Amino acid sequence: MHTSPFTTKDYVRRMERAVEQATAAGLSGVLVAPGPDLSYFTGYRPTAITERITLLVLDAGRDPVTLVPALERPDAEAAPGASAVSLLGWADGTDPYAMLAPLLDPVGHYAISDSAWALHLLGLQRAVPGARFRAMTEALPMLRAVKEPEEVDRLAAAGAAADAAFEQIVSVRFAGRTEHEIGAELAALLRRYGHSGVDFTIVGSGPNGASPHHEMSERIVRDGDMVILDFGGVWADYRSDTTRTVHVGPATDEERQVFDVVRRAQQAAFEAVRPGIACQEIDRVARRVIDGAGYGRYFIHRTGHGIGLTTHEPPYLVEGEPRPLVPGMCFSIEPGVYLPGRFGVRIEDIVTVTEDGGRRLNRTSHDLRFVS
Amino acid sequence: MHTSPFTTKDYVRRMERAVEQATAAGLSGVLVAPGPDLSYFTGYRPTAITERITLLVLDAGRDPVTLVPALERPDAEAAPGASAVSLLGWADGTDPYAMLAPLLDPVGHYAISDSAWALHLLGLQRAVPGARFRAMTEALPMLRAVKEPEEVDRLAAAGAAADAAFEQIVSVRFAGRTEHEIGAELAALLRRYGHSGVDFTIVGSGPNGASPHHEMSERIVRDGDMVILDFGGVWADYRSDTTRTVHVGPATDEERQVFDVVRRAQQAAFEAVRPGIACQEIDRVARRVIDGAGYGRYFIHRTGHGIGLTTHEPPYLVEGEPRPLVPGMCFSIEPGVYLPGRFGVRIEDIVTVTEDGGRRLNRTSHDLRFVS
Repeated sequence: MHTSPFTTKDYVRRMERAVEQATAAGLSGVLVAPGPDLSYFTGYRPTAITERITLLVLDAGRDPVTLVPALERPDAEAAPGASAVSLLGWADGTDPYAMLAPLLDPVGHYAISDSAWALHLLGLQRAVPGARFRAMTEALPMLRAVKEPEEVDRLAAAGAAADAAFEQIVSVRFAGRTEHEIGAELAALLRRYGHSGVDFTIVGSGPNGASPHHEMSERIVRDGDMVILDFGGVWADYRSDTTRTVHVGPATDEERQVFDVVRRAQQAAFEAVRPGIACQEIDRVARRVIDGAGYGRYFIHRTGHGIGLTTHEPPYLVEGEPRPLVPGMCFSIEPGVYLPGRFGVRIEDIVTVTEDGGRRLNRTSHDLRFVS
Repeated sequence: MHTSPFTTKDYVRRMERAVEQATAAGLSGVLVAPGPDLSYFTGYRPTAITERITLLVLDAGRDPVTLVPALERPDAEAAPGASAVSLLGWADGTDPYAMLAPLLDPVGHYAISDSAWALHLLGLQRAVPGARFRAMTEALPMLRAVKEPEEVDRLAAAGAAADAAFEQIVSVRFAGRTEHEIGAELAALLRRYGHSGVDFTIVGSGPNGASPHHEMSERIVRDGDMVILDFGGVWADYRSDTTRTVHVGPATDEERQVFDVVRRAQQAAFEAVRPGIACQEIDRVARRVIDGAGYGRYFIHRTGHGIGLTTHEPPYLVEGEPRPLVPGMCFSIEPGVYLPGRFGVRIEDIVTVTEDGGRRLNRTSHDLRFVS
C-alpha cells in the first residue's frame, strides 16, 4: 500500500477551494458522498458504501462536518484529513436525514456528489424540502479536474506501469488462446508493475473489437485478427487507462488504412491540446479526421474523459462541452472506428495539459504492432 | 465462474412480480439501476457503474425497456434476461433523460433503486418534473427479501464455504502476527473454498474489537486478546457474512461472561425467528438479553440485516421495522458487546426463515474458541 503524500493541509486547502467555487457558482455549499469525492477532500474511504449514509457538508457559513454512522466513527477519525473536520455520529434506529437538516440552509442550493445514492438524496429532499440539489459534475464540473502536481505524478506513474504491461503482453502468443486468457495475463502484468487493483481488461478480437465496451469472451483469437487491448487499474489511488490495437499476423490493406485513420485522429487531437481550447474542440478535431476518411458513422463515442481518482470524470471531451482546458487537467484521447461484425481500432493515451500544450502520460508506440 | 441457474422465465416472473407489488403499493412502476437490482431482474451486470445512465423501466402499462449507453448495448443484449426486455440505446452527446421522459407517466409515482446515482435521479427529476420518486427499500422494501429456493441454496453454499474458512483459520498462529496478516490468510481461505471475491475481513483484536467496523490494522495480536473475526465474500453472486469471536490463550472471567451474554442473545434471537414475527421483535429479543446482563449501552448497532446479492439489504432487524418475517427471508443475527478501549464480542450467523422457524446457514460452534 502506498502512503498518501497528501497532508491535512492539502485537504483543508481543497475544502476551502470547494467552498470558494461553490460560492462563485451561487451555491450554498457542497455535499460530499463516499467515493472519489470524499477521498479527495478528506482521504477517508469507508470500507463499503452502503445504505448507512456518510456525508461531508462543506458550507460557506460554517466549519466542515461529516455525518457518519456511529460504528464507522473510529475509522473516519483515523483518516488523514479528519482533524480538519468535525464528526457527527448517528446510531442505527435514528433518522440521519433529520440530523443533517439543521446543518443545511433550509432554502439553500447544494451540489451533491454524482454517485451519492438516490436513497440518500431522497432522504435529504424530504428532510429539507426547501433546498435544491444539483449534481456535482453539472454544478461544479471542474472541482477535481485540475490536478495538483503530486496527482499528475501519480497518474504518470500509473501510465508508465500500464505501458510496461503492454510492452510485455505483445510478446506473448495470441493465436489459439481465448480473449479471457490474454486478459488474465494482462491483469497479472498490471499487478506486477505496481497496480493494486485492475479495473478492466478489454480484449476485443476480430468482430468483438467492433463493440467498444466488449470486455472479453471465450472467443479464440485467430491469425488475421485485429485485437483491441484496453486496460487500466489503480496505482496508489490514481487510475491508468490506455488502449492499443494489435494485429495477429499480417494485416490487410483495409485494416492498415483504418488503423492509420485512427492514429492520425489521435495525433491531431493531441496536437490541438492547449490551455483555453474548448473540450468539444478536441472532440471535433478527432472527428474531422475520421469523417474526412469516410468513417465518421463508425466513431460512436466521445473522444475522451478525465481521469484521476476515478477512471471517468470531468473534463469530458464531447460535443456540447464548451469549457476550456486548463493546465493540470488530465484526460484520455481515444478515437476509434468500429466496423460492425468485422473489427475495431482504438488508440488511447492519457494526456495532461501543460502551459503551452499537452504531455502524454502513455508513451508506447502508435505503430501497428504485430503479434503472433 | 458459476453459471447462472436462472432462466429468462425466472427473470420475467421477477419483473412481473415487481410490477404487481408496485401496483399494489400505489406506484406507477419501478426504475432499476445497475447493481443488485438490475442483476436480480435481468442478470445484466455492466462492467462498471458510471456516469452514463443505464436504467430498466418496469411499468404496469407497457413492456419492460432498458435504456443503455449505445456502446454497452452488445453486452446488455448478451444478458440472460435480455430477451424479455427491449433495449433502447443512447449515444454520447445526446440527452438520455429526455429519452426516458416519454417512457414515464408524467405525473407518475416511481420506486427507484437505492444505489441509483444522484446524478441520474436529478436528471430524471428535471426531465419529468411532475413525477415523484421514492427509494426502492422504502417503497418496496421486501422486493428481493423473500428468496427463491435456488437463492437460499446459494446463500447456504456461501455460508458453508465461509464456515470452512473459519474452521481452518482457528488452527493458525494468532499471537505475534498482525491483524493484517491474519486477515490476508482468512481472505485466501475464503477464495480457496470457492469465493470469487472477498468483501471484507475484519480482525479486531483486543481494544480494536470494541470498534464494530474496525477492519484490520498493524496491531500485533497478543496472548490474552479477544479477537473478533467477521468476514464474507461473493460465492456465485450471493454473499457470505459470518462472525466468530476467538480468544488467544486463557480468557478472564469477565471475558467469558461477556461472551456468554452475546451467545445467549444470539441464541434467543434465533429461537424467536418464525413467520409473522416483526423484524424489530428479533432485535428486541437480542437486546433484552444484553440489557438484562447490564451491557445494553455497549450493544451499539442493530441486530441484523438481510443478505442476498448484496451484503446489506432488507429485511433489517432493527427497532422501527414492524414488517413481519416471511418464509424464504435470509438475514444475519449478530448481536455484540463493545467495551471501549478493552475488547468486543460478536457472534453472527445467516439465518433463513422456514415455515415453522429458522434455519442457520452458518454452522460452526458458538463455543468460545481458543487459539494460540
